Amino acid sequence: MTVTQSPFDQRLGPVVFDAVQLRVRDRLAGEALDAVLTDNPEDVAYLTGFFHHPGERPVAVWLDTAGETVLLVPELEREHAAEQGSRAELVSFAEYPGIVPPFAALAERVGASGAGRRIGFTTSMSYQRLAAVRAQFPHDEFVPTELVTIARYIKLPEEIALHAEAARITDLMLAAGASLVTEAIASEGVLPSESELASHVTRTGVSAMYSEHVNVVVVSPLAGGLVYAGANSAFPHGLPSGYRLAPGDTLMLSLGCAVGGRFVEGERTFVLGEPSTEQRRYHEAVRLAQEVGGSAIAPGVECRTANDTCLQVIRDAGLGQHLRHRQGHGIGLGMHEPPWLESGDPTLLEAGMIVSNEPGIYIPGHAGYRISDSMLVTSGGSRPLTSFPRALEDCIIPL
Amino acid sequence: MTVTQSPFDQRLGPVVFDAVQLRVRDRLAGEALDAVLTDNPEDVAYLTGFFHHPGERPVAVWLDTAGETVLLVPELEREHAAEQGSRAELVSFAEYPGIVPPFAALAERVGASGAGRRIGFTTSMSYQRLAAVRAQFPHDEFVPTELVTIARYIKLPEEIALHAEAARITDLMLAAGASLVTEAIASEGVLPSESELASHVTRTGVSAMYSEHVNVVVVSPLAGGLVYAGANSAFPHGLPSGYRLAPGDTLMLSLGCAVGGRFVEGERTFVLGEPSTEQRRYHEAVRLAQEVGGSAIAPGVECRTANDTCLQVIRDAGLGQHLRHRQGHGIGLGMHEPPWLESGDPTLLEAGMIVSNEPGIYIPGHAGYRISDSMLVTSGGSRPLTSFPRALEDCIIPL
Repeated sequence: MTVTQSPFDQRLGPVVFDAVQLRVRDRLAGEALDAVLTDNPEDVAYLTGFFHHPGERPVAVWLDTAGETVLLVPELEREHAAEQGSRAELVSFAEYPGIVPPFAALAERVGASGAGRRIGFTTSMSYQRLAAVRAQFPHDEFVPTELVTIARYIKLPEEIALHAEAARITDLMLAAGASLVTEAIASEGVLPSESELASHVTRTGVSAMYSEHVNVVVVSPLAGGLVYAGANSAFPHGLPSGYRLAPGDTLMLSLGCAVGGRFVEGERTFVLGEPSTEQRRYHEAVRLAQEVGGSAIAPGVECRTANDTCLQVIRDAGLGQHLRHRQGHGIGLGMHEPPWLESGDPTLLEAGMIVSNEPGIYIPGHAGYRISDSMLVTSGGSRPLTSFPRALEDCIIPL
Repeated sequence: MTVTQSPFDQRLGPVVFDAVQLRVRDRLAGEALDAVLTDNPEDVAYLTGFFHHPGERPVAVWLDTAGETVLLVPELEREHAAEQGSRAELVSFAEYPGIVPPFAALAERVGASGAGRRIGFTTSMSYQRLAAVRAQFPHDEFVPTELVTIARYIKLPEEIALHAEAARITDLMLAAGASLVTEAIASEGVLPSESELASHVTRTGVSAMYSEHVNVVVVSPLAGGLVYAGANSAFPHGLPSGYRLAPGDTLMLSLGCAVGGRFVEGERTFVLGEPSTEQRRYHEAVRLAQEVGGSAIAPGVECRTANDTCLQVIRDAGLGQHLRHRQGHGIGLGMHEPPWLESGDPTLLEAGMIVSNEPGIYIPGHAGYRISDSMLVTSGGSRPLTSFPRALEDCIIPL
């Protein structure tokens, strides 16, 4: 008998959005708010399941204590929002900027003449858009709130399942990248360039999703990452170039993908051939910092403490001058989202958060070294969602 | 004798940034401003030549009447900004959120204790970031301004040259897309899918740049677009799927690219095989609207008038119920930027502006039809930068 595995469904069901909306609605009272309004595209996807590319035409969610959840979209996006099964009442406006301003349609639906409601707005809203909103709600008070942002910190079980699947595919992508180099060496062929490697791992991730999943949620990027070798890897935010790998290079694969719009990162640093003393020293310092940093990620720990514990390992190794960034950041619907594993963030870690653990060092003219996993904070500590091996011995690509 | 053509250089020289900064500085007095501050990534690229992916770490330009132009970047981006030859004094902050807030570094450089300067800020700045800025400049007054946005309306000659080159490559991409289908038919092979066509035209555009240009400015996307066929094309913002083209389909290639960070769009609607009466009617209505709309784009004309003139052609053809969007939008460092060719925008068109002219109709269950060119407003009217033929007879792919 053949057991057919059913494909992985990327789209969350209405029950999840109901739970999310309940969670947010429950928090309104705590801030004495009658409603919350957000135009943050990740918030919109979180609250309703509607994914879109933000632009000048506003898309926003209104959620109030009376139980209303309204999604404002341009007419252009109405069919798109309906097709995605967006869990909200759809209200649309004709066009931007419009003879009638876009937010007038929302005001008409939820009542513009309310007697002094207190409406929270997301602080990522632009000055311009906030002004456009206020103009349509002249009798209400608008106050900044991080309510939805903070609600997103603790992932629901259904979200964690999406992240876990994204991690599985990220591991496949890391393995595919390493294999492409190994096979080129084995066949004594030309080594791949950074951009060829980048295309290959992207294709690997996207193909896996389209062949094994249904209802693929298309976000940008769906799968991909940064690939850089040799001296190029010393630029933490470099872009894959035409540079072709060479024996002795340090190679960084900084990959990731999104399943159901939920991101995961997985980053490993490889060496082509027998590592030099210098490469061993740098790699080991980062690996140890990542291990110690990972152990520091646990419920009740402040983000800044985890960061300081992690980066101290690199300073203790005498490599502090090569640090360019913090330990990590929250990850979810955003590739980068709060809380921040950085010295300035006192947020307490809690079970259900997902944060990146990605210490790195960058030595100008030589190379960069970074190892990253997306870590799920658990009741007892934390665990990496990605599992590709981290030790140098496992990341040597023999010549 | 062989004449070797020198490669096209995508990077603008310092003299262009000096001209841009002078233009903006000259406008400060008109609004009684002592300085302007913008964190809009396109403004940053416009003023200094520094291109970056925006994130939680602020990147911002300060430009004042005293002649200072300061670029605030995270330490992580300092080498990147220097490598790009950014035309500004670089000031950096350690990390985000930081023990010392990022904007403290800027305040220290330009003086936080100024006696009540009037500082204009771009209105695309988020509430959150504006609050972070104000906290570091407690003695200054902050006022919203569209000054940089409006300075960007009129393209410099050096920018127009970049747009013209982007248009040439967009034409190549349209031709490559049509050829891929033609060749599949000629070889009696399998017709390409939407996503195969999308990959093919992207590769065509990117390859042309890397082989013919130097100093390629990497923005996202560098080249690409939407490709949709048959009923899928009825969704104006659909994404290329695995759908494989079929005889009789309407095919929309909505392509574009950026040269030196300056975007151009070129969109054509094709039919596979002899068009039906219905396809002829829809295509011709859009083509005529685009022609009439293009003639309406001229200096001294209000954006809303051009829009209304253009869309009226479709309404007169009895197809007004299939409209989903305006005539077009400004295009430059932004793929979409003001002014808007829409009923709500009274901005007067001026020579040197570039706007899209892209009327479209969408018939659910059947197909969509859209034809677009990026139009340069000239002293006497306007002209399309892209030149791929628009008439249906030239857009039939014979079976």
